[in-house]
Amino acid sequence: MRVLSGIQPSGRLHVGNYFGAMRQHLELQAEHEGFYFIADYHALTSNPSPEALARHTLDVAMDYIALGLDTEKTVFWRQSDVPEVTELTWLLSCVTPLGLLQRCVSYKDKVAQGLTPNHGLFAYPVLQAADILIFQSNLVPVGADQKQHIEVTRDIAMRFNNAYGEVFTIPEEHIIESVAVVPGTDGRKMSKSYGNTIEIFEPEKSVKKKIMKIVTDSTPVEEPKDPATCNVFALLKLVASPQELAEWDARYRNGGMGYGEAKKRLAELMIDYFQPYRQKRAELENNAGDVRKMLERGAARAKAVAAQTLIEARRAVGLGA
Amino acid sequence: MRVLSGIQPSGRLHVGNYFGAMRQHLELQAEHEGFYFIADYHALTSNPSPEALARHTLDVAMDYIALGLDTEKTVFWRQSDVPEVTELTWLLSCVTPLGLLQRCVSYKDKVAQGLTPNHGLFAYPVLQAADILIFQSNLVPVGADQKQHIEVTRDIAMRFNNAYGEVFTIPEEHIIESVAVVPGTDGRKMSKSYGNTIEIFEPEKSVKKKIMKIVTDSTPVEEPKDPATCNVFALLKLVASPQELAEWDARYRNGGMGYGEAKKRLAELMIDYFQPYRQKRAELENNAGDVRKMLERGAARAKAVAAQTLIEARRAVGLGA
Repeated sequence: MRVLSGIQPSGRLHVGNYFGAMRQHLELQAEHEGFYFIADYHALTSNPSPEALARHTLDVAMDYIALGLDTEKTVFWRQSDVPEVTELTWLLSCVTPLGLLQRCVSYKDKVAQGLTPNHGLFAYPVLQAADILIFQSNLVPVGADQKQHIEVTRDIAMRFNNAYGEVFTIPEEHIIESVAVVPGTDGRKMSKSYGNTIEIFEPEKSVKKKIMKIVTDSTPVEEPKDPATCNVFALLKLVASPQELAEWDARYRNGGMGYGEAKKRLAELMIDYFQPYRQKRAELENNAGDVRKMLERGAARAKAVAAQTLIEARRAVGLGA
Repeated sequence: MRVLSGIQPSGRLHVGNYFGAMRQHLELQAEHEGFYFIADYHALTSNPSPEALARHTLDVAMDYIALGLDTEKTVFWRQSDVPEVTELTWLLSCVTPLGLLQRCVSYKDKVAQGLTPNHGLFAYPVLQAADILIFQSNLVPVGADQKQHIEVTRDIAMRFNNAYGEVFTIPEEHIIESVAVVPGTDGRKMSKSYGNTIEIFEPEKSVKKKIMKIVTDSTPVEEPKDPATCNVFALLKLVASPQELAEWDARYRNGGMGYGEAKKRLAELMIDYFQPYRQKRAELENNAGDVRKMLERGAARAKAVAAQTLIEARRAVGLGA
């Protein structure tokens, strides 16, 4: 099965990204034919500075490769190196009812917030459909909340196939097993926009410092504590062995343990968890040219597939005859 | 000055197309650097059949070349042979406020008619902007009623230049001198959608037949007639010499002339007017391969310019760095 996934180049990845989706994406490589790209065209909808976009694109590529994306097996490229998707976006736009886009949640949210979105933001479900369809993808891993976008893609694909003949594979969503929400250092969901993240590859010292500042309640040391409501425990769950986790669970419930102790251990475990990847990440950082070459090779492989689909789609609608 | 014009591939051109815009476009070639393209991506917004789109694209190319488009001097190509415009469309979409498109007349008209437009129709002012800007066009010939689209293009170009630096030439509209509306055989504006057209290159017999059926009033032969309200006279104006036109004007006003007589002369003059181009048109029809080659050569010239602009635009927004 071909699995397609777009990765937002929103800068260095954090622990919430990793446990929320990235780990699952990396696991899918083993069983499936992975087509993973860095969605820099999509990123333009939020008008990043040119420097930030370029830097974030490279950062996210390095993070993924360091953490185990296999660029030999998995096709991994920068979206804008395969501009064929923008041509398919136009072809699909002409079979996409406007109402379908007006009903999309991301657009409705902006409008509800009183914001006037740019046209890219409004149109991006069509670009997303083009991303998926141009590679004849079978599966698209998404969180349960993103199911709508795959439904939009399926709808567009079926409209095109009905009008012009069977050009596109109809994709299915692959709902990512939901990890409990990963809390940030302030207890809210870990998210760059809240400024509460722990980056996967930030310096160890900084990881420790941030973890020591995680918000906890003020239960005194001697009293029993509830692991279910503790941000530190929620993070321990991600990185501790089941055996050790059971021990912490008991220590929380028994009382006599301070949060500082749990935080110290969390910092150790968190740093250990990502230790194997740190050196790889540092190497990549020092060899950005190699990373660019990997992305170019990926782009060439992706382009071969995209170009073939595009030839079929163009022929189907009567272009270039 | 570089003049850009997009031509809708809506099938064989008629007399109304010719006197309404085409003649003016052809005249602009002499003084300016013409970049003229057949807008097949735009045509997709009305969902033509693949066969019709392919046929109409070739027909309109043949009509233009037969009537004097100089493919050596003027860059003449099929829009979809330079897909770079679709990539620029995406880049521009991300600086285009949605409200700008919602205020566009063509979209508002559809909505007012109770139609649900497809996304292509909604987005096409952005594609149009990309068409104009990617070729760094100075002038865009339009009818007075299409001024809004050039304003949208200017607005988008200025937003992009302000955000990312001076990448695009800001184009000006070149309002086409308005010929009086060309009436069709039923007296309404000549338009394919009314089925009242006289094609430029239809068989002479058929031209005659259609002209003899032009709707006139029922003023008896002997009575004076008003040339200002007569459909036949409106067409005579386009093809008769000033001297002959003055004579017909007098004959209308004096009475004693039947419309049939004016129609007969109109048919002769109309056929004579386009006679020099008929043979050329027939040759092109028999050598469709040559026409395709001309369009391909034009596409190569257009692509060279488009690719350069696109490199600059991509660099400006931070793609591919």
